[in-house]
Amino acid sequence: MSYFDMASAAPLHPVARQALLAALDDGWADPARLYREGRRARVLLDAAREAAAEAVGCRPDELVFTPSGTRALHSAVAGATAGRRRTGRHLVVSAVEHSAVLHAAEPYDTVQVGVDRTGRVDPAAFAAALRPDTALACLQSANHEVGTVQPVEEVAAACRAAGVPLLVDAAQSLAWGAPPDGWSLLAGSAHKWGGPSGVGLLAVRKGTRYAPQEPADERESGRAPGSLSLPAVVAAAASLRAVRDAAAAEAARLGALVERIRTRVARTVPDVEVVGHDRLRLPHLVTFSCLYVDGEALLTALDLAGFSVSSGSSCTSSTLTPSHVLKAMGVLSEGNVRVSLPPGTAEEDVERFLAVLPGVVAEVRAQLGAPTAGSAGSAGAAGDSAGSAADAGSTEPGAGLLVDSLGKLCPIPVIELAKVIGQVPVGGLVTVLSDDEAARLDIPAWCQMRGQEYVGVRPAERGAAYVVRRRG
Amino acid sequence: MSYFDMASAAPLHPVARQALLAALDDGWADPARLYREGRRARVLLDAAREAAAEAVGCRPDELVFTPSGTRALHSAVAGATAGRRRTGRHLVVSAVEHSAVLHAAEPYDTVQVGVDRTGRVDPAAFAAALRPDTALACLQSANHEVGTVQPVEEVAAACRAAGVPLLVDAAQSLAWGAPPDGWSLLAGSAHKWGGPSGVGLLAVRKGTRYAPQEPADERESGRAPGSLSLPAVVAAAASLRAVRDAAAAEAARLGALVERIRTRVARTVPDVEVVGHDRLRLPHLVTFSCLYVDGEALLTALDLAGFSVSSGSSCTSSTLTPSHVLKAMGVLSEGNVRVSLPPGTAEEDVERFLAVLPGVVAEVRAQLGAPTAGSAGSAGAAGDSAGSAADAGSTEPGAGLLVDSLGKLCPIPVIELAKVIGQVPVGGLVTVLSDDEAARLDIPAWCQMRGQEYVGVRPAERGAAYVVRRRG
Repeated sequence: MSYFDMASAAPLHPVARQALLAALDDGWADPARLYREGRRARVLLDAAREAAAEAVGCRPDELVFTPSGTRALHSAVAGATAGRRRTGRHLVVSAVEHSAVLHAAEPYDTVQVGVDRTGRVDPAAFAAALRPDTALACLQSANHEVGTVQPVEEVAAACRAAGVPLLVDAAQSLAWGAPPDGWSLLAGSAHKWGGPSGVGLLAVRKGTRYAPQEPADERESGRAPGSLSLPAVVAAAASLRAVRDAAAAEAARLGALVERIRTRVARTVPDVEVVGHDRLRLPHLVTFSCLYVDGEALLTALDLAGFSVSSGSSCTSSTLTPSHVLKAMGVLSEGNVRVSLPPGTAEEDVERFLAVLPGVVAEVRAQLGAPTAGSAGSAGAAGDSAGSAADAGSTEPGAGLLVDSLGKLCPIPVIELAKVIGQVPVGGLVTVLSDDEAARLDIPAWCQMRGQEYVGVRPAERGAAYVVRRRG
Repeated sequence: MSYFDMASAAPLHPVARQALLAALDDGWADPARLYREGRRARVLLDAAREAAAEAVGCRPDELVFTPSGTRALHSAVAGATAGRRRTGRHLVVSAVEHSAVLHAAEPYDTVQVGVDRTGRVDPAAFAAALRPDTALACLQSANHEVGTVQPVEEVAAACRAAGVPLLVDAAQSLAWGAPPDGWSLLAGSAHKWGGPSGVGLLAVRKGTRYAPQEPADERESGRAPGSLSLPAVVAAAASLRAVRDAAAAEAARLGALVERIRTRVARTVPDVEVVGHDRLRLPHLVTFSCLYVDGEALLTALDLAGFSVSSGSSCTSSTLTPSHVLKAMGVLSEGNVRVSLPPGTAEEDVERFLAVLPGVVAEVRAQLGAPTAGSAGSAGAAGDSAGSAADAGSTEPGAGLLVDSLGKLCPIPVIELAKVIGQVPVGGLVTVLSDDEAARLDIPAWCQMRGQEYVGVRPAERGAAYVVRRRG
């Protein structure tokens, strides 16, 4: 088995495991107690806080441990906005923040700053969104789905100039180095750096207005109620230090492997889009989307072949909507695969993945009856199988061809579109009726990839009607 | 070392440790993922949920894991009241609930139902406090400081009749058996049953209105956002099953040891009050308070003698106020000691504690210049050392003696009172000026223990003036 989903979770780092076992013996007591077991626990907690603060680049008394990165983000949004209640309830966030930030921001007057096709926010656009009543701005250090690194320092400068505190979600980057300067609040999650799950951290710079919104509690400066798992906290801190020590070497090694994946996938898998920034990116993460592929089927096939990866495709989400990150980027969401390599990933595992992938994708496509490379939808040439495949394909008088894909899920609407595009003359229109949320993203993305013209979408009796003009 | 603070935390149960180690290997992945590491984690999570649900007496889909017992209580109060927003914002809680409940209840229109001197609520009084606009009632299964078991079933019946959901904080009793029937919501904490810290549980009975107040999250039915520590959850469930299997035998064994402590302390330590119900109590926990003793000094001396216990005395709290539980019971708070025995506590450790305790108490009293048994304050006989000890002892014209204890902390005001009581004639008054919060509780408690009459308290220029009439 090759586990390539480091960005979700990772096996416990050996150093973390060792620290955890030691702390199970020495750190089980309540660190607030005066007896020796309590004092011993307090020493461990203090040392863990110091180590974590050093890795984050803050003072120990600015950092608290939380039950998860998600809870750190929730507390940060609630506490920072409450601390600036009199300023207003306006929030500025990037459109590709982790869902923990987006959900925490729901009760506020929140503006989402869009990103370009690489997933990166424009600092000027972010700055322009700041208002006199902006209580808080939120920007991740790097994106969790596509790996794109954000311009945190530029955005931080704009926030500072506007007097707006900036919350940086550093979950994906803390393993790789100290976060960029300029944050007011910062959150992280231990199981993204080889620590145990169930440990997050929240740092609040001295001078940042902050009013905890959880019920009062004496622990963690009143910012994270409830008993911590001290052994897990100790393990988290030990692991952070260990991965940081190896970060430069691992970044170089994994970065080269990721570069190899980016290049090779684009070359060996037809109709694929490698997404995310090609240079300003996390070293260990690469994401691509495959036309005419069902993401869940692809994940299952890869799992059978021995590879654990994740996906932002709609069919792999409980809500059947594509990932909000891919949506904000405007890239293809079908057949989406995120590969994130754990430290120590062997070159031969990556080679094996690259060797297996094209066949797996072809197989999934074949099962779906997808057009093959060189056929109509793929190469833009006239095809002949369209009539039979697009069941409801019919000529709409004066409006080209109508494809009824109602009730069909991603990637079927796009496959049906690809199959009939060759049936209309160059300049002619195909209209796809679809009630699948993914079509909204994937039909325009298909047009861009295939060099066809996306005319637009209009509401239909059921779902929406997507109009495409044949170009080539 | 003898660790007698099970009610705070306990070393990991051997079964929990074993389960934790196994789950570190098998349960580190995200259980929501489709690949095999994720599926393996899901199997562990499902099994842990089933085991915990069985121990609680609910369906697995009624139970979620939370990052701590405290967070379970916070979520329960917020979610249950939000679910009944239209009913009202009135809450009924016992005055001796855990601070997590009391703090969570602060934003509401909350009435605290008092307890008797044993720490037990009167079900009729609780029922009488329920109103048509009561959104939620909260009652612990047993008290965490004095061990008194609450009449949960009677209160549950009253709540059911009134149509009010009942939240039962079962943290202290889950190790000992299934909770009493009738709860609508129930919370627990793993490190009270030998599981790891950082794991709580929240059960919500089907049919109970519940609207989670945390930001949206897919995990744990949307009731506990953020990644769980799955290995810790697995360990918690394993430990709960293990302690339950041994509960009856341990309850009998520890119950006898606790009975021995109750009897022997009362006999061998002068001027002591054993608090809590003598029969309706947790098997492993006993609390007593020692007149004329500084709680922190006593804890330190016991720690030096090799015993780890906790205290509800004001001097051991960061806020310098006595425990709200002792306050609600109206019992002495000075020199307070809580002993809670972990499973497997050896009889000889308890014997050693009982052998050491009287000497340790005497030593702490001697350091404070406290009256000895048989002297004025203690036996009610006339003393002769009072003049020198009560620095500001002066005769208030027509009002007996005035003792100025301003600026002095527990137990000094009570010691000074005890020293001068013999100087006034029977029927005469002593007035103690004190700005120590503990005096409000301890001067009346002293009167009750010493057979003197507590006349009352009135505000003074600084602090308050406590008036005592000599009886014997």
